[in-house]
Amino acid sequence: MTRDKKLGRLAEIAVKIGVNVQKGQELIVNAPIEAQELVRRIAEHAYRAGATLVVPFFADDATQRARYLHAGDESFDFAPAWMGEAMAKAIGNGAAMLTVVGSDPMLLADCDPARIGRAQRAAAAAMKPVRNLLSGFATNWSILSFATPAWARAIFPDIAEGEAVAKLWDAIFAVTRVDLPDPIEAWRDHAASLLDRCGILNNKRFAALHFRGPGTDLRVGLAENHLWAGGAIEACNGVVCLPNMPTEEVFSMPHKNNVEGIVSATKPLVYGGVLIEGISVRFEAGRIVEVHASKGEDVFKSLIDTDEGASRLGEVALVPDASPVSRAGLIFRNTLFDENAASHIALGQALALNMKGGCDAAQGANESMIHVDWMIGSAQIDVDGIAASGTAEPVMRAGAFVIRN
Amino acid sequence: MTRDKKLGRLAEIAVKIGVNVQKGQELIVNAPIEAQELVRRIAEHAYRAGATLVVPFFADDATQRARYLHAGDESFDFAPAWMGEAMAKAIGNGAAMLTVVGSDPMLLADCDPARIGRAQRAAAAAMKPVRNLLSGFATNWSILSFATPAWARAIFPDIAEGEAVAKLWDAIFAVTRVDLPDPIEAWRDHAASLLDRCGILNNKRFAALHFRGPGTDLRVGLAENHLWAGGAIEACNGVVCLPNMPTEEVFSMPHKNNVEGIVSATKPLVYGGVLIEGISVRFEAGRIVEVHASKGEDVFKSLIDTDEGASRLGEVALVPDASPVSRAGLIFRNTLFDENAASHIALGQALALNMKGGCDAAQGANESMIHVDWMIGSAQIDVDGIAASGTAEPVMRAGAFVIRN
Ligand SMILES: [Zn+2]
Ligand SMILES: [Zn+2]
Ligand SMILES: [Zn+2]
Ligand SMILES: [Zn+2]
Repeated sequence: MTRDKKLGRLAEIAVKIGVNVQKGQELIVNAPIEAQELVRRIAEHAYRAGATLVVPFFADDATQRARYLHAGDESFDFAPAWMGEAMAKAIGNGAAMLTVVGSDPMLLADCDPARIGRAQRAAAAAMKPVRNLLSGFATNWSILSFATPAWARAIFPDIAEGEAVAKLWDAIFAVTRVDLPDPIEAWRDHAASLLDRCGILNNKRFAALHFRGPGTDLRVGLAENHLWAGGAIEACNGVVCLPNMPTEEVFSMPHKNNVEGIVSATKPLVYGGVLIEGISVRFEAGRIVEVHASKGEDVFKSLIDTDEGASRLGEVALVPDASPVSRAGLIFRNTLFDENAASHIALGQALALNMKGGCDAAQGANESMIHVDWMIGSAQIDVDGIAASGTAEPVMRAGAFVIRN
Repeated sequence: MTRDKKLGRLAEIAVKIGVNVQKGQELIVNAPIEAQELVRRIAEHAYRAGATLVVPFFADDATQRARYLHAGDESFDFAPAWMGEAMAKAIGNGAAMLTVVGSDPMLLADCDPARIGRAQRAAAAAMKPVRNLLSGFATNWSILSFATPAWARAIFPDIAEGEAVAKLWDAIFAVTRVDLPDPIEAWRDHAASLLDRCGILNNKRFAALHFRGPGTDLRVGLAENHLWAGGAIEACNGVVCLPNMPTEEVFSMPHKNNVEGIVSATKPLVYGGVLIEGISVRFEAGRIVEVHASKGEDVFKSLIDTDEGASRLGEVALVPDASPVSRAGLIFRNTLFDENAASHIALGQALALNMKGGCDAAQGANESMIHVDWMIGSAQIDVDGIAASGTAEPVMRAGAFVIRN
């Protein structure tokens, strides 16, 4: 199959399985400008599926970078809140959203971390209305990715650009199951098996998870009435979507005041165009009280200072080390991929679908302008489920699921 | 000078002379996706000038065309009104706007004219809040252009694409004065001479203009309290901008009920991705009562049926046949250029700056969702100014200005 043909398949999967756009629905598509070929195919499949309108928003890394190179210092506290409000209004009126990621993970590597932090904070505030609707699944939405040259170069710095892009596409097509004879069917099977895993964990009603491994001894209390989710999600409008492609995780809600111990990142975190490496933090009563990072520590500190909830957890997720994304053996420097290669926790906003009746702070749901996933799993990590009685039960051993019904 | 260097100059002129973005101002940039290199340079110059935020919106012809190829029929009455509202809100809060044009004039040539008409009508309604603010110069704004391959091919169908693009760039750089040693100074001089011409015409206080030439015998009554404008405009926020680059016209407001006679287009009109040729119409009491077009008549009829004001005039403009745009000797198939190559009239919305105290329907200001310029000037057209007393005075002869103070 040619790359062209595979791009068409990726668009079809994204439209039919990912966002599952409905007849009569408007579709907002966010994408890097390099992804125009994919966006055109997405538009084609969305219109074929009966979308009334496909509204693409193209983001340009170079324009963003021009700001860091040429703007006055006061610029960095501004963000277009009017865009966030407009998109929220469209979603409120029924629009679905598909987001294509693939921007240069190194775009801002040489820029001032304080400015990056301020700009991210302003952007997060501007997009809050959209984030609230998406995290509450007010509509069907999905995220997929596009192999931009800059992203490919960041992953494969030592080979020629064309070859790097080809290798990244190979990885993307593999983990999105585009390579399989019937990708749509394969995604339906995969979603069913993630749903089974959620069922098992929901039956257990653990009070906490205990992560152990090199540099990690972390007890993540689970919120009261927490729910495990993964794979397909039925949005509030009744449409079943698959929010992340790839997706390998099952995830639930930590109790914001009930996380204790130390944890070390097992993969770098890309945030605000900067690579943050060697993160190790200590939690007390749910809050990060000590931070170390071998690289990008300033940006990480600025991140957890965004607001009160940014230093607490909003998500805990379990991913087998043998997942297709992990088997790709790459550090993708892109959360959509890396979070599906390893168990992770997320700083910031909790997800409504992880609690019966939606987010309730009194039951431990965290609130923040940010939601940043951060990888803590590997083949060297064991996870136990801790019952309310204190009994421990193996959930994962050496990165593999061992729990059974 | 390399094309790259000239692109940088074009961006600088657009930012400094065109939209004249101010320190502390947000800048919205609309552009075809092919113009990303220009947009990046615009962002650079805007940030240098102290813009707080540059927000680019890239339009993709192929995505738009996908709709005509694949969407259901009901799609064509939809447009994202939430985007129009959002941009209007941003402008209301002080944002400036720069629009780059250059989309394929032939994009929808093979599509259903009825659908094109419906889609344009829906888009016009969705963008009404923005159009109202811009036509009233609530903020500083400007339009410039980018030589996309599709546009270049439409102008030069018989030569290779690369050569066509190069020729179109040559024309654009010439008419935007990028070629001159000091383009900024050249634009200041040109704007001053347009202002002089407006002063002369405003002193005359003509009751009407009379156009005569092959297929044309048209009396355009001018609105009471009409004002001539051209070149630079002081927006309501006090910022002086140059809304069109190139610009060679001086323009004023027709009386919506007082246009009589026949008029023939001297250049094709590109509307909704379709070329409309050989237009000839008859006006009675300000309204088009008879329409002929040798090509695209359906689209033209659908255009003037948009609303009550779409068959009446909102603008009359005088352009010398010896203008740099006219001297380029091309049919650009792009209104920004072609309207600056010839005297023209516009169907639809009148412009607030063409009447003392802004648009007043009682004094003859037309109102419509559309504003479509349409070329009626050439080296064969004479124009007289008719005083209230009925006396005629030569304004243009054989396409050249002859009027003096
Ligand atoms: Zn997750
Ligand atoms: Zn997450
Ligand atoms: Zn005009
Ligand atoms: Zn006009």
